[in-house]
Amino acid sequence: MGSALGSVAGAVAGTSPATPVAAPAAAGGTPMDPALPMPWRSQPGRPFIDYGLPSPHEGQAVRRTGLNFRHVDGNGAAWTPLERLEGSLTPNGLHFVRNHNGTPEIDPAHHRLQVHGMVRQPLSFDIEALQRYPLRSQQIFLECGGNSSQGWAEEPVQRPASLVHGLLSCSEWTGVPLALLLDEAGIDPRAAWVIATGADAGALHMSLPIAKARDDCLVALFQNGERLRPENGYPVRLIVPGWKGVMSVKWLASLQLADQPAMGRNETARYTEPLPAGPARQFSFVMEVKSLITTPSHGHSLAGPGFHEIRGLAWSGRGRIRRVEVSSDGGVQWTEAVLQAPVQPRCLTRFRAAWQWDGRPCVLKSRAIDETGAVQPTREALIAERGSRGTYHYNAIVAWDVDAHGYLSHTHD
Amino acid sequence: MGSALGSVAGAVAGTSPATPVAAPAAAGGTPMDPALPMPWRSQPGRPFIDYGLPSPHEGQAVRRTGLNFRHVDGNGAAWTPLERLEGSLTPNGLHFVRNHNGTPEIDPAHHRLQVHGMVRQPLSFDIEALQRYPLRSQQIFLECGGNSSQGWAEEPVQRPASLVHGLLSCSEWTGVPLALLLDEAGIDPRAAWVIATGADAGALHMSLPIAKARDDCLVALFQNGERLRPENGYPVRLIVPGWKGVMSVKWLASLQLADQPAMGRNETARYTEPLPAGPARQFSFVMEVKSLITTPSHGHSLAGPGFHEIRGLAWSGRGRIRRVEVSSDGGVQWTEAVLQAPVQPRCLTRFRAAWQWDGRPCVLKSRAIDETGAVQPTREALIAERGSRGTYHYNAIVAWDVDAHGYLSHTHD
Repeated sequence: MGSALGSVAGAVAGTSPATPVAAPAAAGGTPMDPALPMPWRSQPGRPFIDYGLPSPHEGQAVRRTGLNFRHVDGNGAAWTPLERLEGSLTPNGLHFVRNHNGTPEIDPAHHRLQVHGMVRQPLSFDIEALQRYPLRSQQIFLECGGNSSQGWAEEPVQRPASLVHGLLSCSEWTGVPLALLLDEAGIDPRAAWVIATGADAGALHMSLPIAKARDDCLVALFQNGERLRPENGYPVRLIVPGWKGVMSVKWLASLQLADQPAMGRNETARYTEPLPAGPARQFSFVMEVKSLITTPSHGHSLAGPGFHEIRGLAWSGRGRIRRVEVSSDGGVQWTEAVLQAPVQPRCLTRFRAAWQWDGRPCVLKSRAIDETGAVQPTREALIAERGSRGTYHYNAIVAWDVDAHGYLSHTHD
Repeated sequence: MGSALGSVAGAVAGTSPATPVAAPAAAGGTPMDPALPMPWRSQPGRPFIDYGLPSPHEGQAVRRTGLNFRHVDGNGAAWTPLERLEGSLTPNGLHFVRNHNGTPEIDPAHHRLQVHGMVRQPLSFDIEALQRYPLRSQQIFLECGGNSSQGWAEEPVQRPASLVHGLLSCSEWTGVPLALLLDEAGIDPRAAWVIATGADAGALHMSLPIAKARDDCLVALFQNGERLRPENGYPVRLIVPGWKGVMSVKWLASLQLADQPAMGRNETARYTEPLPAGPARQFSFVMEVKSLITTPSHGHSLAGPGFHEIRGLAWSGRGRIRRVEVSSDGGVQWTEAVLQAPVQPRCLTRFRAAWQWDGRPCVLKSRAIDETGAVQPTREALIAERGSRGTYHYNAIVAWDVDAHGYLSHTHD
């Protein structure tokens, strides 16, 4: 099979369901150089700066704007460089962006969130008022409903993992539980939907069932500790945990209670999926269980046979990841990977597995199972259910082909 | 007492040890304005950017360089603006910095980590080699041993919380378990210390007992998902969980195994504490249990009587926070605050408590208890034990005075 998988890494990490460490998993040291030059020691370093930035040597670890629709600046997407990141969080500067009409430059002093429609009392909240409510923080992934849509293509798309799957990020979001604001306005018992609208030029709006709105949604003010970034919704956005990213309306300006959904462009002409049998899926909210090997992945070259750690991300809109399995023989045999603790619901979960590559061609895959028992489907199974004309909700197993030189490329095998 | 404390917020947040919600904790909405102007809707927004930055309206949420020693640029500290942040993480651009000789500008292609001294085989590791080892990720706080040192002053220092307590941050760090590298070099059984040295111009070095080195230390490459920031140790630093920040040597260049500590400047002339009885404390590593109310805090003005959420941070170098209590009567009565889940060991833990202010003067305090049962001491108890000439390891309860106008200031009461 060209390889042997194990969980040495997991035992080392101490987060494993207990596998003993047999021996050092990797040996990468070379003989010491006692005369190593360190030119940066010859002069005092740079003074303090008030807001830090990455090293200039990390200029490749940026978002790529790989998709622009209809040649309109600001309608498109910027992708998180997943294969250059580690751990489970996305730094704010690299959180993916899917904008339909650019990033509005909002003065928070003049922004209001208004709650109206089928309510006892229409209300307006400024940012200062929102900050006085009880806050809640939670690490939550966001994934665009159209993430990985290139997976539907008949031929495997030969691009870095991030330019196919990078509409995916994870942050600690802090905000006011949406239920608090709705209760203060007083919901008419006949209201069934909350229509959320942004302050962007396109006035993007989405219809959210009221049960979800009252369950776990946040009116978010902070992202990874600091105030939201402009392109991620500053000064206030909705966070709808586990659901497609477009539901988490940015620059949130209006919440209208209604007895019907808005049937707006993004829930009719877009973000719906034709099915083989005829009628389309609409209001398909939940991002289902999924995983991706980020290291090694498309475009990487293995330095040589021997130890490699397979690393990736797993997530499910339905809750916690229960288990991730990896295969180095194209899916015949599977080995359990180690999950980084603590595993949190609706959060990116880092997985890792030790792998001894024997230098022969092989195919790497990962498969996630969530706490509801849902298993990430094969590409064949997904297409059998949903047809091949899909755009949204692609969550099939991703396969990386490793050739005899150690070069990785995307495969459908 | 001027106030009533409760845990309404906690029950709302769903992270509480179960207190029912009686009623909305806050009511901040004003009547809706149907004609609200939204000038940013009148034109398309800004196009995509490859690495995002905060809104220009958040210019106050920066690190302050409040301390510069001997007028040497690069010898001093930059403070995390704790009272402007929320949740439990610190964004990388705002992680505190304590540098002794500035930030070296290191080319990662020419940086090496060398392991030598009492080892079987001296070894050298480049960054690429380090990245091939099994990785581990963990959210860990770092606190400078000299954080809050102004607390020792006889009069309460009247500065924002961050300029007294802001040498404190929390990140998800990802790196190679230090034990793996030491084992590969082969430790002489007589070795008892690991002397870690940075590549900065001052060649800062610290002596780490080998038991801790083999227990839970990381050779870190990533911070909150991305590569380390230059001022936080790029391209590689040590992370010594729960111990004073100076132990987590940045720009890590050398690990020397030895049977004696180095007795360097920062473990003799500095980072030791004279005691009232005579001899000084040396090698005082662990940062003990501590907490701080960040909102409201010094310099804040309460908008008026009524609901306020008391928010703060708690942490302990010995493990998890078990409980945080808050008081609004200067420490006579204490109420349990709600802890943001999941509570992780050696990690900043956000706490929140509902508070009804009746408009009369009062004193706010918080007190943390960790999983070992250690209780954050009063200022009196700390001084009785350690004297008043201390510089390091100040972890006493912090008190904020609220006057009749709602203005907060630091007090020792």
